[in-house]
Amino acid sequence: MTARIVELRQGLQKKNDQLAAELRRDLKARGVYAVNLVSSPGTGKTELLRATLAELMGRGHRVAALVGDLETDNDARRLATSGAPVRQILTHGMCHLDAEMIRNHLDGFDLDGIEYLFIENVGNLVCPASYDLAEDCRVVLLSVTEGEDKPLKYPTIFNSADAAVITKVDLAAAVEFDAALARHNIHAIRPGIPILETSAKRGIGMEAWYQLLESRLVKER
Amino acid sequence: MTARIVELRQGLQKKNDQLAAELRRDLKARGVYAVNLVSSPGTGKTELLRATLAELMGRGHRVAALVGDLETDNDARRLATSGAPVRQILTHGMCHLDAEMIRNHLDGFDLDGIEYLFIENVGNLVCPASYDLAEDCRVVLLSVTEGEDKPLKYPTIFNSADAAVITKVDLAAAVEFDAALARHNIHAIRPGIPILETSAKRGIGMEAWYQLLESRLVKER
Repeated sequence: MTARIVELRQGLQKKNDQLAAELRRDLKARGVYAVNLVSSPGTGKTELLRATLAELMGRGHRVAALVGDLETDNDARRLATSGAPVRQILTHGMCHLDAEMIRNHLDGFDLDGIEYLFIENVGNLVCPASYDLAEDCRVVLLSVTEGEDKPLKYPTIFNSADAAVITKVDLAAAVEFDAALARHNIHAIRPGIPILETSAKRGIGMEAWYQLLESRLVKER
Repeated sequence: MTARIVELRQGLQKKNDQLAAELRRDLKARGVYAVNLVSSPGTGKTELLRATLAELMGRGHRVAALVGDLETDNDARRLATSGAPVRQILTHGMCHLDAEMIRNHLDGFDLDGIEYLFIENVGNLVCPASYDLAEDCRVVLLSVTEGEDKPLKYPTIFNSADAAVITKVDLAAAVEFDAALARHNIHAIRPGIPILETSAKRGIGMEAWYQLLESRLVKER
């Protein structure tokens, strides 16, 4: 990478950080708790989020979601089946969301009374790590099928996360997943982070995830 | 993205394309057939490649591999168990390999008589799409656990591939994978591309993959 492109990239990230700081103040003033879901493609962000939106609504919470993809509105349509308000953000080739996209897609979105704003990032373990989206909580997902070494190979995204969710644990035996090793590797990169083991499809471990989300909301207030 | 960064990025890609063209001529002159493996993290590039290096060596071919990761030399160590010469490329945060990294890591690498040079790219479905590594064949991998819609959501990388390998088919039933839909989506983005269905771990569908590689080598000569 040339020095010039590093410099420009740092400039863009600084601009993003400023926008994110403004947006964070705005969301906080409205009482919105924002959660940024990051992972590799196919880890199961959409499935976890679909279940989460439906369950939190069932518990009387008001929720909304933004979902980022390079192309297609498949994920927004899947998430909308939960009944929650959802908007698709298309990045047309860019490998991450940024704070400006979040701000622009919240424009005209009725946030009054919304307690949780979920942001499903583009499937990517590299680029989203460097972009603050004004979230209160960054959650990194890792599926049992991806291998236990991913935290070591993609340290920045694990190091910037506030919680880790291991997904598809119903497949753990089939892929000989070593949960202790995965936990060890996550904590080697980000000591003390909460780690949840879930299967959204089979409803395994989801209660602990909902409790984590509800406890964060209480703590914020 | 600002106009300036787009311009700089285009400049970098042009420089990469020129370097790749030189390297391609050099590899061709030496009789080396280069294969660039691209996929999401955890799709199984390393497992496919480890089996492939061992099998091709068993068939009397001379092979070598470069493997890219942000951090760790885990993959180079796994691949070296095949007995093939392997070098790790660490990108320290960058989301793809480029032609300069390939050229620099081939420096001093004995390529005499090497027929196949495999390049395992960084696990990422976005960034590697735009970087020519002087490969003769770009192979995109998609695991059954990632979902059938990934070609539609990451069209550039599928559109730039010369072959597609569906991996982990031993898990297809457990994840209710729809192979016909996945094939339909791959061909919607890249009509006519060969699609192989494999499990490197269980040795399923590998013969067709080896035959594809051997037929390409014959065709090149």
